[in-house]
Amino acid sequence: MATHKLLLLPGDGIGPEVMGEVKRLIDWLNAAGIAKFETDTGLVGGSAYDAHKVSISEGDMAKAKDADAVIFGAVGGPKWDAVPYEVRPEAGLLRLRKDLALFANLRPAVCYPALADASSLKREAVEGLDIVIVRELTGGVYFGEPKTITDLGNGQKRAIDTQVYDTYEIERIGRVAFELARKRKNKVTSMEKRNVMKSGVLWNEVMTQVHKREYPDVTLEHQLADSGGMMLVKWPKQFDVIVTDNLFGDMLSDIAAMLTGSLGMLPSASLGEVDVKTRKRKALYEPVHGSAPDIAGKGLANPIAMISSFGMALRYSFDMGDLADKVDQAIAAVLASGLRTADIKSEGTTSASTTQMGEAILKEL
Amino acid sequence: MATHKLLLLPGDGIGPEVMGEVKRLIDWLNAAGIAKFETDTGLVGGSAYDAHKVSISEGDMAKAKDADAVIFGAVGGPKWDAVPYEVRPEAGLLRLRKDLALFANLRPAVCYPALADASSLKREAVEGLDIVIVRELTGGVYFGEPKTITDLGNGQKRAIDTQVYDTYEIERIGRVAFELARKRKNKVTSMEKRNVMKSGVLWNEVMTQVHKREYPDVTLEHQLADSGGMMLVKWPKQFDVIVTDNLFGDMLSDIAAMLTGSLGMLPSASLGEVDVKTRKRKALYEPVHGSAPDIAGKGLANPIAMISSFGMALRYSFDMGDLADKVDQAIAAVLASGLRTADIKSEGTTSASTTQMGEAILKEL
Ligand SMILES: CC(C)[C@H](C(=O)O)[C@@H](O)C(=O)O
Ligand SMILES: CC(C)[C@H](C(=O)O)[C@@H](O)C(=O)O
Repeated sequence: MATHKLLLLPGDGIGPEVMGEVKRLIDWLNAAGIAKFETDTGLVGGSAYDAHKVSISEGDMAKAKDADAVIFGAVGGPKWDAVPYEVRPEAGLLRLRKDLALFANLRPAVCYPALADASSLKREAVEGLDIVIVRELTGGVYFGEPKTITDLGNGQKRAIDTQVYDTYEIERIGRVAFELARKRKNKVTSMEKRNVMKSGVLWNEVMTQVHKREYPDVTLEHQLADSGGMMLVKWPKQFDVIVTDNLFGDMLSDIAAMLTGSLGMLPSASLGEVDVKTRKRKALYEPVHGSAPDIAGKGLANPIAMISSFGMALRYSFDMGDLADKVDQAIAAVLASGLRTADIKSEGTTSASTTQMGEAILKEL
Repeated sequence: MATHKLLLLPGDGIGPEVMGEVKRLIDWLNAAGIAKFETDTGLVGGSAYDAHKVSISEGDMAKAKDADAVIFGAVGGPKWDAVPYEVRPEAGLLRLRKDLALFANLRPAVCYPALADASSLKREAVEGLDIVIVRELTGGVYFGEPKTITDLGNGQKRAIDTQVYDTYEIERIGRVAFELARKRKNKVTSMEKRNVMKSGVLWNEVMTQVHKREYPDVTLEHQLADSGGMMLVKWPKQFDVIVTDNLFGDMLSDIAAMLTGSLGMLPSASLGEVDVKTRKRKALYEPVHGSAPDIAGKGLANPIAMISSFGMALRYSFDMGDLADKVDQAIAAVLASGLRTADIKSEGTTSASTTQMGEAILKEL
């Protein structure tokens, strides 16, 4: 049995707590002889700042590059609101994405049947919802230069951010979306603002070409990001795979996640290019929710998104799709049994702490 | 009685139809001696392209600059998908905004009680919703330079868009938001991505300063635009006035509009600076909905957003708040009577064409 190297980066807020439940699952998989994971741990975000005055240390970056997959909790919190921009908690996550070249961010927005009523949307609008947002993650306005604030004198400053996209960046994220759609409902919706942004014009053009040249069997639709956002709120089930740039992907995937009513349940995968020799790819898995500093340390956090993110690691990094399916089924079964953490509690269900939820899922497995 | 000069720019798609109903209202106001409007008409968008190969002619731009207010329909449609980028229909609207310096875009998102069930959100989440998005409209990535596509050879192109914000641009839109909040629930939520964008850092800093210096009596909250979008979907009623940049404002105001279930009903105002001498300001009023080419020319379009936009003109450009209130009341009364255009039709209501709806509102008045 191959040994897989994992780097666990719990981060801040509820990160360590939910990561604890993944650790429990990993230990059990190892003990039961189902898989062989070697885990190491590092600091990222505010916790790295507190220890080393950086958002991630060079040592931990080296470990991340060396690992077969990084399992990431969450970063940030009001405690670090005043730290210098360069070392703010988010910088650690952005550096991981950029330096590991994790250009493809997959964010499934799935409505768990047991939670359909937790959405602010009507049940009929979200019941059975199952879409994936494929977000470009290493380009666009997140990383483009110049990115500066200049003092113009007279109390005036000028801030500049630059959105940059090259053809190859759009091509490769397009391929990820089309490949994924082939395994699903065979439909891709590309979203940009071509009526205002040159990057939108190029995005639209390249998606159309990749589609025509390599994936004519998949349905491709284009939508302006603003009306796409509207359609997402109006009738999300019309979509299958949505592919979009870094900033629109940030907005749209959060909105899609919120629609499902299952925010505390949603995982994500950030993937690099497949190495032609080793056939491996760099990868980082993280829950869609943030660090929730208000409930940190109280045993209230929902570990499902984190566990489900580890499930995505099993599927995408370790070719253990069957085991990933079992993890998903265990989560669904525990939910069906009525167990709920505070964030998804409703009448007639049973309260569970972070640990109780993690243990229950493990027991199901 | 002062004479007010209006330029009507119906534009494309359903634009001319809904503008027809505003024209009817203006004619009646003139005939009844309630006001004195002098109207002129121009072409914008695809219709200007068809006539002159531009998105708006110099003659019409001059008329717009000369008018006390521009009443704008909608632009765009598949017919012009292939026209050169510089003369695409949207360019006409963008030029009007920029050349008239209409930096403040006010987009109320109000849920009409009669339509609370038309939303994809649960009734309790949207009933009574009344928020305003104040969007910066002449800066940011819409107009920043460079804005280019460069051929890099080898089949590679590079697209660049630039987000630029200066202190004074953030200050003046902040003031609009704070002033508005004082007349409402006294709360402003500023949204940006300071964790990723330098313009977000500056935005946050300047809003905080303006607040502290000039509006300490108003409550100011800051939210990241992605989680702000989530909150908007989860519980929109937590907001009063939201102030944000051009691109986030584009996304967030469309989403807010869709939440209300009243998309075909929502007006907007785009305002310039108040001239210190004349105490007048340039202004453009337009419905939030687009040109809806699929239903154009069929008498199906809902004229309410257009009429309501004219109502905003009465209020913000002509100091006729009382008359504006009466227009709002007439709309509400017609809706309460059960009259509905196709977009908002539900069981037990009476169908109306564009004209029938316009006439009914006029009759109420
Ligand atoms: C933490 C932050 C930098 C990040 C982003 O903006 O990408 C987050 O919002 C996300 O979506 O993963
Ligand atoms: C038509 C288009 C250029 C415009 C924009 O992006 O600003 C529209 O979406 C809007 O919101 O008014």
